Amino acid sequence: MSKFWNQRTKRLRPYVPGEQPQDQRYIKLNTNENPAPPTPAVLKAMHAAVDDALNLYPDPECRLLKQSIADYYSLAVDCVFVGNGSDEVLAHIFAGLFNPDKPLVCPDISYSFYPVYARLYDIELRTIPLGEAFELDLREYPADNGGVIFANPNAPTSMAVPLDEIEAFLVRNTDSVVVVDEAYVDFGAQSCVELIARYPNLLVVQTLSKSRSLAGLRVGFALGDPALIEGLERVKNSFNSYPLDKVAQAGAIAAFEDVQGFEVAREEVVRIRRQAYLSLLTLGFDVLDSSANFLFARPLFLPAEQVYQGLKDAGVLVRYFNAPRISEYLRITIGTEQEMVVLVEKLNELKAGVMQS
Amino acid sequence: MSKFWNQRTKRLRPYVPGEQPQDQRYIKLNTNENPAPPTPAVLKAMHAAVDDALNLYPDPECRLLKQSIADYYSLAVDCVFVGNGSDEVLAHIFAGLFNPDKPLVCPDISYSFYPVYARLYDIELRTIPLGEAFELDLREYPADNGGVIFANPNAPTSMAVPLDEIEAFLVRNTDSVVVVDEAYVDFGAQSCVELIARYPNLLVVQTLSKSRSLAGLRVGFALGDPALIEGLERVKNSFNSYPLDKVAQAGAIAAFEDVQGFEVAREEVVRIRRQAYLSLLTLGFDVLDSSANFLFARPLFLPAEQVYQGLKDAGVLVRYFNAPRISEYLRITIGTEQEMVVLVEKLNELKAGVMQS
Repeated sequence: MSKFWNQRTKRLRPYVPGEQPQDQRYIKLNTNENPAPPTPAVLKAMHAAVDDALNLYPDPECRLLKQSIADYYSLAVDCVFVGNGSDEVLAHIFAGLFNPDKPLVCPDISYSFYPVYARLYDIELRTIPLGEAFELDLREYPADNGGVIFANPNAPTSMAVPLDEIEAFLVRNTDSVVVVDEAYVDFGAQSCVELIARYPNLLVVQTLSKSRSLAGLRVGFALGDPALIEGLERVKNSFNSYPLDKVAQAGAIAAFEDVQGFEVAREEVVRIRRQAYLSLLTLGFDVLDSSANFLFARPLFLPAEQVYQGLKDAGVLVRYFNAPRISEYLRITIGTEQEMVVLVEKLNELKAGVMQS
Repeated sequence: MSKFWNQRTKRLRPYVPGEQPQDQRYIKLNTNENPAPPTPAVLKAMHAAVDDALNLYPDPECRLLKQSIADYYSLAVDCVFVGNGSDEVLAHIFAGLFNPDKPLVCPDISYSFYPVYARLYDIELRTIPLGEAFELDLREYPADNGGVIFANPNAPTSMAVPLDEIEAFLVRNTDSVVVVDEAYVDFGAQSCVELIARYPNLLVVQTLSKSRSLAGLRVGFALGDPALIEGLERVKNSFNSYPLDKVAQAGAIAAFEDVQGFEVAREEVVRIRRQAYLSLLTLGFDVLDSSANFLFARPLFLPAEQVYQGLKDAGVLVRYFNAPRISEYLRITIGTEQEMVVLVEKLNELKAGVMQS
């Protein structure tokens, strides 16, 4: 604490990301990165952008990138907002589109950055408990709110809400902005993008960090009615004119153009997830039904925290949340086939150790 | 305006950056970019970072980059904060370190993003007029303030405040954070970095966009007492964990390691500035004494706005501010020697046109 921090800084409770060891000693199944590298077309476009013209500012409007995303989703370009990762996009949404005079509504178990943003922008949060089986029931969400945000599929639970349930909610919640955080949608959930034309208060947030294998690049975006996008542009242009560097814009454009490379990598994750799901069941886990690139699973043979620590000691990082309702679960990212084999081996060894003792 | 914008979004007056035409038809002397490309060592490091590991998140702490900057300035690493361009760094300073219960003090003519941030974070701004000759006199700055910010050298005036005047101000202004925005300091002003050890309320902000030829990369930083830096980290980690992508971190590290490449490019700008200064005087301009990579100059033969437009029609972009006190001036970035020759040619043609008519 310092006398030079203002009240806002003092009240903050910063987000703590998953461990990011930089020495590459671990098999990293803890921050939901895609095991596939970016496609060759993406790397080629980035190399081409590393040139003498880096002395010049990039396009502050990211027009070509917005056009690529708009084309991919068959939207008008003024329905697209881009930012430095979906975290920055979410921050601007909290700053500019949620009404701070009423509570913002979100699930009790969800992306743990939401309450952090709420504190940053002094927004009261009203959390609605997920059901017994971690299901998200939007019928329980109150009508009088300053905004609604949830992840679909949800994190860390991996479970998805069907599109018709989201639309039913949008039909009755028309006075505040509804944000559907689709960071993981490409791995098996139904996107809300097709609802944008009918619901001017719907904002869909996505990222290139997961399904497009570009966590290292920091590009996220929001899709919605042009009036919502214009509001986000006002906040962005009051904060930082140039959040996306030249190389990131080039890589992101190529990622949206390389449809085939994207499809191949995404299907591979889904295939490996199916195998990993069965392996964990066999090992003695309760595993939730995943529409994401991770599994949320409860070990029955040892407390989750011990499994987390045992795996870490054996060189495999998974994510453990010491938080209410989910402290008996692990969030395990889908890695390469080989990485998942090692995971299962190490889990077998941990389990065998329990049996012997 | 939309019913889904909150009060903050409605009150914003977003920053308008200088024109960034993407078609490269113009000689760009309007946004203070460095005419030199990044050094070969920087491009090499960036190419090396464009690899398969882009599927992984970058280091959220930017530890290696902070260490490079700390080494360059002989500071401890916990005196360094990095962000997505100095604009993002400034935004976090406004959010977290200025006391919004008292007015923030800054010059009436300065970087036009300061009032934009003040609106974003609901901070009252008290501007102190520069002197008749645009000199900044810190003795006029009131003691009772929620923070102080000024650019040194100032923009768009290009003039610098001597270090001893800044220190004299710090001796009496001890209760609020004083931010010296040194975006252009490498071109001829005295940096305040050496004062950091003695003044725990001093924060120095710099960027790689100007003297290090990396506007396309989006890296800026702040230097100050560890308690100030910790406050900024709290804000940053409540906003976006990973603002600097992998390639940007690699390029920025190389830029700080390539001391010789940096010195050569900077001295070249200073040399060309000297020539351009004399050329503008000869042409019939009043030119302020510049410590930056641009000149602030008043044409005596035609109104500034007409010169701006005439140059634009002739393919040369300079910056014109239609604002009180400076509407008779142009801000002209120092380009390559060849670009400045073209500028002088075009100015001569404009002047000849006036003489004939």
